[in-house]
Amino acid sequence: MKPKFVALLCLFSFCSAADTVGYRGDILYFKGDPANDSEATVYIKDGYLIVKDGRVVKSGDYISLKDQPVDNTVDYSGKIITAGFVDTHVHYPQITMISEYGEQLIGWLNTYTFPTEIKYKNHHYASQEAAEFLDQLINNGTTTALVFATSSPVSVDAFFEQALKRNMRMISGKVLMDRNAPAELLDTPQSAYEESKLLIEKWQHKGRLDYAVTPRFAPTSTDQELAVAGRLLKEYPDVYLHTHLAENNQEVEWVKQLFPQSRSYLDVYDKHGLVTKKSIFAHSIHLNDDDFRVLSEKNANIAFCPTSNLFLGSGLFNLDKSREYHIPVGLGTDVGAGTSLSVIQTMDEAYKVTQMRKAFTDKPEEVHSLTPRENLYLATLGGATVLSLQDKIGSLTPGKEADFVVLDPLAGPILSERNKQAKNIDEILFGMEMLGDDRIVAHTYVMGKKMK
Amino acid sequence: MKPKFVALLCLFSFCSAADTVGYRGDILYFKGDPANDSEATVYIKDGYLIVKDGRVVKSGDYISLKDQPVDNTVDYSGKIITAGFVDTHVHYPQITMISEYGEQLIGWLNTYTFPTEIKYKNHHYASQEAAEFLDQLINNGTTTALVFATSSPVSVDAFFEQALKRNMRMISGKVLMDRNAPAELLDTPQSAYEESKLLIEKWQHKGRLDYAVTPRFAPTSTDQELAVAGRLLKEYPDVYLHTHLAENNQEVEWVKQLFPQSRSYLDVYDKHGLVTKKSIFAHSIHLNDDDFRVLSEKNANIAFCPTSNLFLGSGLFNLDKSREYHIPVGLGTDVGAGTSLSVIQTMDEAYKVTQMRKAFTDKPEEVHSLTPRENLYLATLGGATVLSLQDKIGSLTPGKEADFVVLDPLAGPILSERNKQAKNIDEILFGMEMLGDDRIVAHTYVMGKKMK
Repeated sequence: MKPKFVALLCLFSFCSAADTVGYRGDILYFKGDPANDSEATVYIKDGYLIVKDGRVVKSGDYISLKDQPVDNTVDYSGKIITAGFVDTHVHYPQITMISEYGEQLIGWLNTYTFPTEIKYKNHHYASQEAAEFLDQLINNGTTTALVFATSSPVSVDAFFEQALKRNMRMISGKVLMDRNAPAELLDTPQSAYEESKLLIEKWQHKGRLDYAVTPRFAPTSTDQELAVAGRLLKEYPDVYLHTHLAENNQEVEWVKQLFPQSRSYLDVYDKHGLVTKKSIFAHSIHLNDDDFRVLSEKNANIAFCPTSNLFLGSGLFNLDKSREYHIPVGLGTDVGAGTSLSVIQTMDEAYKVTQMRKAFTDKPEEVHSLTPRENLYLATLGGATVLSLQDKIGSLTPGKEADFVVLDPLAGPILSERNKQAKNIDEILFGMEMLGDDRIVAHTYVMGKKMK
Repeated sequence: MKPKFVALLCLFSFCSAADTVGYRGDILYFKGDPANDSEATVYIKDGYLIVKDGRVVKSGDYISLKDQPVDNTVDYSGKIITAGFVDTHVHYPQITMISEYGEQLIGWLNTYTFPTEIKYKNHHYASQEAAEFLDQLINNGTTTALVFATSSPVSVDAFFEQALKRNMRMISGKVLMDRNAPAELLDTPQSAYEESKLLIEKWQHKGRLDYAVTPRFAPTSTDQELAVAGRLLKEYPDVYLHTHLAENNQEVEWVKQLFPQSRSYLDVYDKHGLVTKKSIFAHSIHLNDDDFRVLSEKNANIAFCPTSNLFLGSGLFNLDKSREYHIPVGLGTDVGAGTSLSVIQTMDEAYKVTQMRKAFTDKPEEVHSLTPRENLYLATLGGATVLSLQDKIGSLTPGKEADFVVLDPLAGPILSERNKQAKNIDEILFGMEMLGDDRIVAHTYVMGKKMK
C-alpha cells in the first residue's frame, strides 16, 4: 500500500492512528512449534501487549511493563490474548452453500458448488458476499486466510476490494478450470494466463494482499492449463500456488485415469513445477510415502481441513506422518464443504480426526493425540508458517503486525463451569478448543484496530 | 405423581394451568420412521398446535384450526415447532469434566471420570450440578434424557429431585460397579441390590420419572453383580436397563479376557437377562452379525453417540446395519465423553460419522447418507421409541405430552444467509442440523410450560 493511501485511511480513522495502546490480559502465543520444541510456548499470566501503528511494540508481564509510556490501557484481565487465527483453506463463494446434503466430493461439486459459483460473475453480488464472508471471519477471530474465489476475475476483484477496505491480510486468486465443469465456469489456458497476469499485477502486494495461482484441482485442468500455472509461478516467484490434493479415494482414481503418465496425484502438479515452498495443498489425505517425501523436499505445505474431511466422508488426515516428514501444516475451515468458518470449531474436529485414527490401527498408543498447544499453534503461527508469513503474523513478538484476538475462557455456562475447575492453561485451552465457537471470541483486532 | 401434589405445583404456577393455548408456526414431526416410511413426516407450513393441561389437544394447519376456542395464541410464525429432543445416553455428573484431553475409553475413565464421580456423594454438590445440567438441557431443547448418575444413591436422589422440580420426563439410576474402579466408587452385589431396590421404590413412576438399572459396563461388574441387575429387572419388569456396549476395541478385548466363557460382549449381558425391549446399549460400535441378531430378537435398543465416538476415537457406528436388523436407534450426547449437550450438534456429527464410513469401503455408494428427516427422527420420535415412550412424547399428535421446542431456522448470520436460499424444508432442516447450536432453540416447553 502506498504511504499516501495509508495516511488517507488513517484520516478516516480506519487504522489505529499513532496512539500507543497497552492491552492487559493473559498472553499466549508460540515462538516455534510446540510439537517439537518444549520451549515454544509463551504464556504470561497477567501480561501486557503494547501496540503502536498497527504493530506489536512489546509484550511481556504487566508488572514489568506497566510503566512503559502508552496513550491508553485496555483491561482484558481474565481473558486470553493470542494471535489472530489463520485459515489456510477456504472458499468465500461457498458461504451461502455451506453444508449441503448427501454427497462426497465429485457429486458435491457438480450438484451444489458449480451452480453457486456461476453467480460470482456479478460484481455487486460478489462484493456483498465477500463483505459478509470477511465480517464473519472477524466475528470468528480469523484475521488471515488463503481463499478460493471463482474462475471469474470479477470474483477476485470483489474479494480483494473488500479485504483492502478492512485492511486484512488476505491471499486469493482466480480459479483455473478448463474442463470437467459447466461451460460458464470454464476458462482456457490462454484466458487463464492473461486474466491471472492482470490480477497479479493489480493486487499482488497491494496493502496486505497477496496473490495465489489457483488451479481448482487436477481433474478440472488440462496439462496445458497446469503448464500455464507453472509459467505464472516462474514469472512471479513470490505468488502462491493454492489447490486441492488427494482429498477423496474416487478423486484419486479419477486423476489416475486422467493423467496415466503420472506417478501419483501429487506428481501431476510436480511435473508442472507447482510444488514449491509457496504451495499449499488442501486435504492431502490419500498420499503415499513418496508423496510425503516430495512435499518435504520441496518445502511445500498442507492445509488440514477436518470438518470438511468428516462432512464429505473423505478420510482421516495423517498429521503424524506429515510431522515425520517435517511438512508445515495449518488448519483450513474449507467452507462450504467445511461446516464452520470458526477456526475454534475446526480445532475441535482436528482433535477428533486425529483421535479417530486410533480406531483404525492395532497400535492406538502410537497415534499422537493433538495437544491443545499444538492445535492452537496450527491455528496461529503454524498457519502463518504454511503461508510463509511467520515473520509478519501468527504471534505477538515485537514488530509483528498486530492481528490478535481476545478470548473469553469462561464464555457460556458449560465452558465456564468446566474451565473454573481447570488446573492449568492446557486444560483451559483444551476446553476452549473443544467447546468454543464465535462466542469465545470477545474481540478481534486487525493491524491494531478493533474490528469486533 | 399424586393428584394433590400436581395441584399444588399448579398453584405455584409450576404447570400450565387449565389455559388452552394455540401456538402458530411451521409444525414438523414424525408419525413413523422416515427411513422406511415415506409418509412418516408431518410438515405443516403455517400450522397451529393447541395445548391444554400440558398435553397436545390438536395440531394442524392454522387456517383450519384458527377458530378453535383457545385462551391465548402465541405467534411463532416463521419458526419451526417440533417435539422436544430426546437424549438417549448422557452422564449428568460429567458436566464439569466435559472434554478432557488425550485418552481413549479406559484411560479416560481412570484419569478423569472416576475422580470426578466421587464428588457426587455430597447431596448439596450433586443437587447443584443436577440443576445446572437440567437447565442446560432445557437451553439446548432437550426435554427427555436417559441419564447416568454415579454409584452413590445420593446422586440419584439429587438428580430426580431436580427433574421433578422441573416436571421433566427423565430416566436415571444408580450405577452398579463392584470392581475395576476406585474403592470409594465401588458397591457390592448386595448393596447394589438393596440400594437399587430402595431407589426404584422411591422414584419409579413418580411424576414423569422412570428408573433404569445401570451397570456401568461389563468390565466394572462381576458376574454376581450382573446377576443382581437381572434379578432387579425380573422383580420390576417395567424398569429400564442402561449400560455401555462395545464402544472401543481395547474394551472389547478386555471383556473377552474378563468373561472368557461368553460368546461376545453382548453375550455377557444376555446371559444375565439384561437384553430386553427396555434395554438401551450406548455405542454398540464393535458388534458382529450375531450380536445384531440378538439385539433384534430381543427388541433391544441402541444409543448412537457420535461426538463421543469421535472424541475418544472409538470407531464409526454402523447405522445401516442397525436398520438392516430393525433395531431402534436414538441419539446420545454422552457428555462428558461427548463434546456437547446439544442434540443439534450431535445431529451434525451423526451425519459426519455416517459419511466417514464411506472413506473406509470400496463401495461408498452403498453407505447411506443420513437424511435431515431421519436425523431429526432419531433426535425426537426415534429416541422416544428407544425409551418405549413413543406413546407419550416425541411427536405432536393429540394426547401427547406437550414437550416441544421452537426452532429458529434463521438464527445467526451464516445459517440465515444459507437458509434464505434453501428451496424446501429438507434443505432448511439440514442447515439447522449442520450449523445449529443452542442459539437456534428459541423456546423449550415442558408439559406445556415455557422453560426457555
